[in-house]
Amino acid sequence: MPERSPLAPDRFPALPPIAGVRLAAGACGIRYKGRTDLLFVELAPGTTAAGVFTRSSMPSAPVDWCRKAVGSGRARAIVVNSGNANAFTGRIGAASVARTVAATAHLVRCEQREVFVSSTGVIGEPLADERITAALPQLRRSLSAEGWAEAAAAIMTTDTFAKAATRTAKIGGKRVVINGIAKGSGMIAPNMGTMLAFIFTDARIPAAALRTLLRSANDRSFNSITVDGDTSTSDTVLLCATGQAGNKAVASAASAQLRDFRAKLDEVMQDLAQQVVRDGEGAQKLIRVTTKGAVSEASARRIALAIANSPLVKTAIAGEDANWGRLVMAVGKSGERAVPARLGVRIGGVEVARKGMRVTGYDEAPVNAHMKGREIDLEVDIGLGRGRATVWTCDLTHGYISINADYRS
Amino acid sequence: MPERSPLAPDRFPALPPIAGVRLAAGACGIRYKGRTDLLFVELAPGTTAAGVFTRSSMPSAPVDWCRKAVGSGRARAIVVNSGNANAFTGRIGAASVARTVAATAHLVRCEQREVFVSSTGVIGEPLADERITAALPQLRRSLSAEGWAEAAAAIMTTDTFAKAATRTAKIGGKRVVINGIAKGSGMIAPNMGTMLAFIFTDARIPAAALRTLLRSANDRSFNSITVDGDTSTSDTVLLCATGQAGNKAVASAASAQLRDFRAKLDEVMQDLAQQVVRDGEGAQKLIRVTTKGAVSEASARRIALAIANSPLVKTAIAGEDANWGRLVMAVGKSGERAVPARLGVRIGGVEVARKGMRVTGYDEAPVNAHMKGREIDLEVDIGLGRGRATVWTCDLTHGYISINADYRS
Repeated sequence: MPERSPLAPDRFPALPPIAGVRLAAGACGIRYKGRTDLLFVELAPGTTAAGVFTRSSMPSAPVDWCRKAVGSGRARAIVVNSGNANAFTGRIGAASVARTVAATAHLVRCEQREVFVSSTGVIGEPLADERITAALPQLRRSLSAEGWAEAAAAIMTTDTFAKAATRTAKIGGKRVVINGIAKGSGMIAPNMGTMLAFIFTDARIPAAALRTLLRSANDRSFNSITVDGDTSTSDTVLLCATGQAGNKAVASAASAQLRDFRAKLDEVMQDLAQQVVRDGEGAQKLIRVTTKGAVSEASARRIALAIANSPLVKTAIAGEDANWGRLVMAVGKSGERAVPARLGVRIGGVEVARKGMRVTGYDEAPVNAHMKGREIDLEVDIGLGRGRATVWTCDLTHGYISINADYRS
Repeated sequence: MPERSPLAPDRFPALPPIAGVRLAAGACGIRYKGRTDLLFVELAPGTTAAGVFTRSSMPSAPVDWCRKAVGSGRARAIVVNSGNANAFTGRIGAASVARTVAATAHLVRCEQREVFVSSTGVIGEPLADERITAALPQLRRSLSAEGWAEAAAAIMTTDTFAKAATRTAKIGGKRVVINGIAKGSGMIAPNMGTMLAFIFTDARIPAAALRTLLRSANDRSFNSITVDGDTSTSDTVLLCATGQAGNKAVASAASAQLRDFRAKLDEVMQDLAQQVVRDGEGAQKLIRVTTKGAVSEASARRIALAIANSPLVKTAIAGEDANWGRLVMAVGKSGERAVPARLGVRIGGVEVARKGMRVTGYDEAPVNAHMKGREIDLEVDIGLGRGRATVWTCDLTHGYISINADYRS
């Protein structure tokens, strides 16, 4: 087990209970020894749900299932295992999911399409689903509204800390809670990585509105982080709303009533997404890449991601080297519109280059000092338009190599 | 200076002289101490030339110049320095190139657009071109037809060995020679990396045909390798034909007379390109990725590159771990057409997965043995069409991190 990331938050946040959400974690021995690897969440009748999933053309069997089930717009149970992704397992994997879903629906007495399953871990090996279904009845008896820390811990793989975030929001005067848990530390790239996140609220929001809210917040959070540019077969973000807060019905995601909720949902998801980067495999530094002046927001994001995914940028930062030429290189390779004569670069707020050249009398001292910190701030001004974007990543270190050169064995 | 790559060829090949090509290497103190950093090549009058350059939107000043000059279709001199890329240096960089070109043209008594310059090294710092122009007259007096090894050494940056290749070909009964030298070991990705290659032949081939020959061979060589997915601002491949072999004129690149020449040019360029990968920063293993059954050749190449650029694939290979699930992941993230139920995977020739699942009774032993070798063979069958491609890369190791976390300082 690698050491806790130096970028980890000081403590696990205190998550209040959410009416209609109960959780339980257990150990069923899928792969790991001496730790939990199974999470069971039961949701009150009437819970609405929305989900976003990996864009991989090789989705795992659980993702295939969830994509279908989420069409119901409802959720009554979520079953998550760590240690085995049940990905690239063909018919065997699909049968595994079917058995888990059937057993869970039977237990909870709900429809199968109200049951969601997620699996994370090694790819290509059959999942011992009989261990999961055997453990579920006992797990159900230990359900609790307080089990957030245990839930977040059970879904970890190479994570070095459990990830959660919470906020409260007001909808038409009613106070609602938003809690989220997430896992992920490698195979993280836009369109998410081996990234699982489960977000719950007691707000009453129809499924259609929930979908819009989730997609929009997801673009600014989990789709704006990258650790290694690799994309998992298993990415899943679910947002479930139990409706137990008793707020008045909202018409749509764009409703003015949801203004505060939208902001707080953004906060929860960005908090979780940044925690994933803070736990990036081997990460020693959190890197924020801001691009502005691009020809569009999409272009700004692609340039920011080209920088955030560049091994040469990430190793330079690991070496605390203000090698800003590599930022220029990454802009150049992005394929996006940019011309040297307009380009500007700032590191830690200090202007390094302007209009295609290093600034006159450039003093590297404050930039070098910034490079020694835990949080690195890179800004590139393309100088062509008004598109801007922010992306978070981490440095590429010996730790990443150590973790990934022997993860499976 | 890092140790010589374990994947390096046993020895520097013996390159025969090429009539009309003379070379000299010198040390002018651009950045390095105690080694050469300047190459001067003089070409006989009548030499035709073609070039391909980085697709970066941030090309270096020398690339900007060469792209213009190569329109002449002729070459009389090439000046290459290592240690400073003269990239992102704005007007100062362009003036630097202009002075170097003018001095060289004066020395050689040729037109400016027959002079090519290349620079490789750190980005964003002004180039001390006065050191280059001051060294040229002396260098010109030491020109020799034998200076290939010294030439290949002078253009190295983080390279651990000098790279060259040679072949002979027949054109209409006449024997012609093709020699090439190259440098590159990091910032290597299709559309080339910090990749410089200079290829010379005594064949007589018009510039228009030379351009076609170069583009085509380049796609199968330098555009089919990747070390880290990063693309340099300085990539340049020049092909110069002195015409001194006295072969009969050829009408076009497609001429039947050039069949053998095309094959041998492919061999020289693939040999050089593979040497670049063999010298990939920190490389311990050479990886060949073959994709077949893709919907097109372009799709096959993009899938092969998604695999070859995946940090998780490359670290697994560094760890000698037959983690084939990561190959599936990389196919999935490529964005290319692929469906799990058709996908097959072979490692070291052993079938691991077929039609979306691990093969029954899969025996990992021979695959594990293959993973311990120096050359790793990965094959993915997409099962949808007839597109195929081969790409070369290397593993991602602690060595890569060590080299790149402190290259500049």
